Amino acid sequence: METISVDMDGVLADVYSQFIKMHAAESGETLILENLEGLAEFEAFKHGPKHVRTDDFFRTASVMAKSQEILKKLNERYKVFIVSSATEFPKSLTEKQSWLNEHFPFITWQQMVFCGSKEIIKADIMIDDHFKNLDHFDGRTILFTQPHNKLNHNHKHQRVDSWEEIEKLLLS
Amino acid sequence: METISVDMDGVLADVYSQFIKMHAAESGETLILENLEGLAEFEAFKHGPKHVRTDDFFRTASVMAKSQEILKKLNERYKVFIVSSATEFPKSLTEKQSWLNEHFPFITWQQMVFCGSKEIIKADIMIDDHFKNLDHFDGRTILFTQPHNKLNHNHKHQRVDSWEEIEKLLLS
Repeated sequence: METISVDMDGVLADVYSQFIKMHAAESGETLILENLEGLAEFEAFKHGPKHVRTDDFFRTASVMAKSQEILKKLNERYKVFIVSSATEFPKSLTEKQSWLNEHFPFITWQQMVFCGSKEIIKADIMIDDHFKNLDHFDGRTILFTQPHNKLNHNHKHQRVDSWEEIEKLLLS
Repeated sequence: METISVDMDGVLADVYSQFIKMHAAESGETLILENLEGLAEFEAFKHGPKHVRTDDFFRTASVMAKSQEILKKLNERYKVFIVSSATEFPKSLTEKQSWLNEHFPFITWQQMVFCGSKEIIKADIMIDDHFKNLDHFDGRTILFTQPHNKLNHNHKHQRVDSWEEIEKLLLS
């Protein structure tokens, strides 16, 4: 059975919506996704470093469209691990685990990995929105489109724009 | 630079002393290490499943003798990752990170991995006290002696009894 490493932020968890909501609450300004393309997350969200350290930032993030039903199917056909960069923000550790337990109850504690760097991850397939994670991975790499990576046309990773595309790629 | 995956419980953190202390506080009985050889941890410590879920169990564990100075030297010669099974006990996540920050301040958040299974770990060397972690690892395996593994004379992993032996093996 092939092993898949699935990222959380920007793949399962909609952190852009969370940043936009908190930015609006703080500054009164509603940022538009299209205007954030090509910007790193903390270039797009100047209060990001503070907001990401706020209680419940990760705990209350929305779930990416279709990720629940499609990850459930992947979980039947592959050995799935949820691998999330989390140790930079210590409070996020238990928030992320609670969030997974709530929204992806079929993912067991054995399938969760909270790390700093993904250099140490061994799997057959990695789904992630960050080049820095995919670039040093040995196996098949799938880049999940997010505004920060949208203008990077480097083709070394297979790009998907949605969970439906992951379904087509890995389940048909 | 070679990569090492270093376990926490039973390698950096002295969980046996912690279990013995809590067992004595609960039952008045002082368990002797020699009598626990060959027993799985929760066979040795019948209150273990409760104690391990107690606040501060991981946070206040003692540090294994010589582990601080020798890990510091390893950290200069190797790419070190601390890889700890933690997601089974969600409260342990932040406790373990705080404990590492206190006792091993030279280990950065990028070097920490909190997981359930170690199947997903890629490294050149793994130091661990559990066969279940070492058995499916691809690289060089070093078994750190603890009472639960002491009577297992299977020689597929190189056994060390102390951090001084790790130093001899990897730093001389």
